[in-house]
Amino acid sequence: MNELAAVADADLLEEELGAIAADVDAMFDRLLEAPADARAPLFEAMRHAAIGGGKRLRPLLVRAAARLFAVDPDCALRAGVAVEAIHVYSLIHDDLPAMDDDAMRRGKPTVHIAFDEATAILAGDALHAMAFEILSDPDTHADPFVRAELIAELARAAGPSGMAGGQMMDLAAEHQSFDLATVTRLQHMKTGALICWCVEAGAILGRVPHEGRAGLRAYARDIGLAFQIVDDLIDVEGDAATAGKAVGKDADAGKETFVSLMGVERAREQARILTEQAISHLASHGREADLLRAIARYILERNH
Amino acid sequence: MNELAAVADADLLEEELGAIAADVDAMFDRLLEAPADARAPLFEAMRHAAIGGGKRLRPLLVRAAARLFAVDPDCALRAGVAVEAIHVYSLIHDDLPAMDDDAMRRGKPTVHIAFDEATAILAGDALHAMAFEILSDPDTHADPFVRAELIAELARAAGPSGMAGGQMMDLAAEHQSFDLATVTRLQHMKTGALICWCVEAGAILGRVPHEGRAGLRAYARDIGLAFQIVDDLIDVEGDAATAGKAVGKDADAGKETFVSLMGVERAREQARILTEQAISHLASHGREADLLRAIARYILERNH
Repeated sequence: MNELAAVADADLLEEELGAIAADVDAMFDRLLEAPADARAPLFEAMRHAAIGGGKRLRPLLVRAAARLFAVDPDCALRAGVAVEAIHVYSLIHDDLPAMDDDAMRRGKPTVHIAFDEATAILAGDALHAMAFEILSDPDTHADPFVRAELIAELARAAGPSGMAGGQMMDLAAEHQSFDLATVTRLQHMKTGALICWCVEAGAILGRVPHEGRAGLRAYARDIGLAFQIVDDLIDVEGDAATAGKAVGKDADAGKETFVSLMGVERAREQARILTEQAISHLASHGREADLLRAIARYILERNH
Repeated sequence: MNELAAVADADLLEEELGAIAADVDAMFDRLLEAPADARAPLFEAMRHAAIGGGKRLRPLLVRAAARLFAVDPDCALRAGVAVEAIHVYSLIHDDLPAMDDDAMRRGKPTVHIAFDEATAILAGDALHAMAFEILSDPDTHADPFVRAELIAELARAAGPSGMAGGQMMDLAAEHQSFDLATVTRLQHMKTGALICWCVEAGAILGRVPHEGRAGLRAYARDIGLAFQIVDDLIDVEGDAATAGKAVGKDADAGKETFVSLMGVERAREQARILTEQAISHLASHGREADLLRAIARYILERNH
């Protein structure tokens, strides 16, 4: 890519990141209006975690993929907010003292610090259920077949064969020494599965049959892996202020990561190759896939 | 009801409770086969909580309601296992040290005692996702409209306006003095919403339109309330060995309950009236509703 194109790319992405952040915040604000009863702290905790933070990469991926198939933007936004609700719930629970014991997230105190542990557990649980409530609503798609497929895939991506299973392996990584194949599988479950869902959701909303999704799925798998490698690099090289959370945690916990297994240089090179490969999977799509291409580059180049 | 009928009633219920317990255990056993990787402890924890315990009242309610509409028994069982997965996840999280801090459940050590807190949080999360995976599978019902409605109603019943919201109010009850109306609303959210889902699920699976479900919904609301009043009576009068969990906890925590607000005698009378009222809502159904009637009486008379 030449320099001018790179600038245009960065401009496009900055604009899109701003737009999706505003849209996701507005929808969470609407969905999480606190009731005038003793549940108010639950809603406040959900708002604390869900509103005003994060890159909103997952909703942006849904939006970008949905655009390829001329999906109604409101439907794509609802699907994006659903997956973000799952992501946010997982952050709340992962930050708990019994899990990663983190005090800062997205530059703010974590939920169990700002509120308390019980409220944090419940806020996570409530966001988890809300994700499926959003997807099962006819507003997300008029065709119940589409809604059921979105739900089936998200439940799989979030459950014991996806995110929750990956998190369990991640906890085990403190006591066991994993090889590169196992770390790759762990990370695909822990973060890759949800990222794959985002891209596939765009195709599901656009009623693209299974066999028409191969390129997008390959794209998603590659950027998911690149995302995690860059995360590991940030954990080693970043600073807490930029990252918005504690860094250096994996090494402190004695966990094998892409960086510990491959070294910094090879890990960075691998992330670069995965990004190029991801973009090559979009070859059959024209300019309308530029946002997906820009997201892939952004994932590689981000520092938080 | 005369004495002979009461005996027949108890016999019917005993048989049905045995059958549903075996069927639910068998399906969880199949769904939760532990993989040969570092996720094994997660699956073991899910199995510990989900298999071999509990009255399986929720799956039995789904089965009993589904029978009124000649629903395929396998579909009803899948829906029953889904709601039981939600119920079990809520027990795991409620028992955590930061929540009710219970060491015993269903006569066994709670998950965070038998495993650890992190595994307990994840096992709950994984069961939560699994419930929606089960419901979104075409095996649960061939019609995606039916699946989407089951999911929408279950997500609502489990989320911030249902179970999670009720649990939040229940935590607040330790610091605030609630009146009878607020305790009733709290309990309807905390346990009633899920019980209502079970009965309604039978009707949804049977494609009964909304307006045809009024009697069943009224039945479900009444038995849900009776269930909670009896729970409060067991907490005051029962012993831990029979209950399979700690008793006397509400009074120790200074929480208002139906019993603290109404007294033992009036609470017992109220549960009896609700049970009769629940049964009267089934008047338009014939003998095929006998199991629902027997469940209502069982809820009133149980001591654990």
